[in-house]
Amino acid sequence: MRNLLMTVSYDGTEYFGFQTQPDGNTVQDHLEAAILGLTGEVVKIHGSGRTDAGVHAREQPFHVHTESKIPVDRWRMALNGRLPADIRVTDVQEVPLSFHARRSAKRKTYRFSINANRVPDVFNRRYQVHHPGQLNVENMQEGLKYLIGTHDYTSFASRHSTKASHVRTIYEAWIELDRSGNYSGSHEQGVIHIFMTGSGFLQHMVRIIVGTLLQVGEGKRKPEDMKKILEAQDRAAAGPTAESKGLMLWEVLYEQTDLTAGDLTELNNYET
Amino acid sequence: MRNLLMTVSYDGTEYFGFQTQPDGNTVQDHLEAAILGLTGEVVKIHGSGRTDAGVHAREQPFHVHTESKIPVDRWRMALNGRLPADIRVTDVQEVPLSFHARRSAKRKTYRFSINANRVPDVFNRRYQVHHPGQLNVENMQEGLKYLIGTHDYTSFASRHSTKASHVRTIYEAWIELDRSGNYSGSHEQGVIHIFMTGSGFLQHMVRIIVGTLLQVGEGKRKPEDMKKILEAQDRAAAGPTAESKGLMLWEVLYEQTDLTAGDLTELNNYET
Repeated sequence: MRNLLMTVSYDGTEYFGFQTQPDGNTVQDHLEAAILGLTGEVVKIHGSGRTDAGVHAREQPFHVHTESKIPVDRWRMALNGRLPADIRVTDVQEVPLSFHARRSAKRKTYRFSINANRVPDVFNRRYQVHHPGQLNVENMQEGLKYLIGTHDYTSFASRHSTKASHVRTIYEAWIELDRSGNYSGSHEQGVIHIFMTGSGFLQHMVRIIVGTLLQVGEGKRKPEDMKKILEAQDRAAAGPTAESKGLMLWEVLYEQTDLTAGDLTELNNYET
Repeated sequence: MRNLLMTVSYDGTEYFGFQTQPDGNTVQDHLEAAILGLTGEVVKIHGSGRTDAGVHAREQPFHVHTESKIPVDRWRMALNGRLPADIRVTDVQEVPLSFHARRSAKRKTYRFSINANRVPDVFNRRYQVHHPGQLNVENMQEGLKYLIGTHDYTSFASRHSTKASHVRTIYEAWIELDRSGNYSGSHEQGVIHIFMTGSGFLQHMVRIIVGTLLQVGEGKRKPEDMKKILEAQDRAAAGPTAESKGLMLWEVLYEQTDLTAGDLTELNNYET
């Protein structure tokens, strides 16, 4: 038995999220089918977490136990040959059996992208929410700062959340303004990327934070309102849930010791 | 009668090119249908040139004559509301009746994008040709230089070209290497963007140049072979035609006097 840690990038537009659902058509279904095709094994993969329908991932980790003897450096190309073009395995390595893609995760970073120009960018239309009209980015940055730290994020969680505790930690949160893709001669706002790094995120948490921050940017709320909303511990206090298409799982980090502990003598990292 | 100059960006994946074809489903068809919906006029638009099926455009100019009294600054949003999400009008301005989007064009720039990393970028999979394996970019740059100038480009033109002369001028040609999108920890080549600016391009010309340059990058040909291929004036001397998905019409430039001459007292540029 070996434990393989892989990372997968996907354009989530056509999928009902990462994790298997009763109605099918998830990223997990495609990955498990590709592994079945390669090894003949019916496996269950374990993602670093769920993603909502329409959400994208840049390098989402998952692990899978396998009896296959296929060398680690063959898996990536073999799986990609069996996957649709909008799902690509980007890395495969062997890790200790104790490693778990979700439970071992230390930090997760999400990015939410808002195109604030008057015309949507056709080439990124699947990955950006189009929000024309002036946004006060400085106020959005200030509002975001109130959310950093360890808090009960009930106000920013779906009412359908089944988690016992809504206490999470946001380590860092910041905004990057990208004006590089602007059309020549335009004097537009650019694309606003909102990043959040935390211990974990509740259902819809990033999207509700963004939906509320957009109200701050529009001047409908003040930056310091974010603090009051947090303290209310009431979903009704926050703004709407921003569209899933703007959200991308950006990065999941582990302790290096979790990846290399145990009796492994060599880290089978295809990349290095 | 007014003459409107517009620019349009499109993801060409789903279309049979810009210009109307017997089998339909072109960008021009959609633009003319949107104008009909807005003004009630059956019009024929004139693009800056054709693009092949599957080729993209960042800001392709076209002009159209209209009797409509709708103010210039209303057109963009009104047309975009009638167009599919992969076609967007980015600018509309009124120009002299003497202006012609194709005949007035002074310079055209194309970009061809090659992803040379081992795994394709799912988010740009529609706009990049995936070419894993080592490419000698310096040799490709050197080979490209032999094409700059005024030459007969028969070797790099489709055999179906019906042009009386294959003499054109390439003013500039250069390569930009973009490693920004690389996955963390990877030591990969990045994305190779090949740019060419010229007076005009023959059918398939950029794609055949790129297909040949890829052979230079792979070491199958030497950089100086580009000179011999050019001199052969024979399509058989060059390499294959690169896939259309990697090609994007990047920019078309006009003389400012062509845009503002005549009896116009004001340049109705929505952006400025």
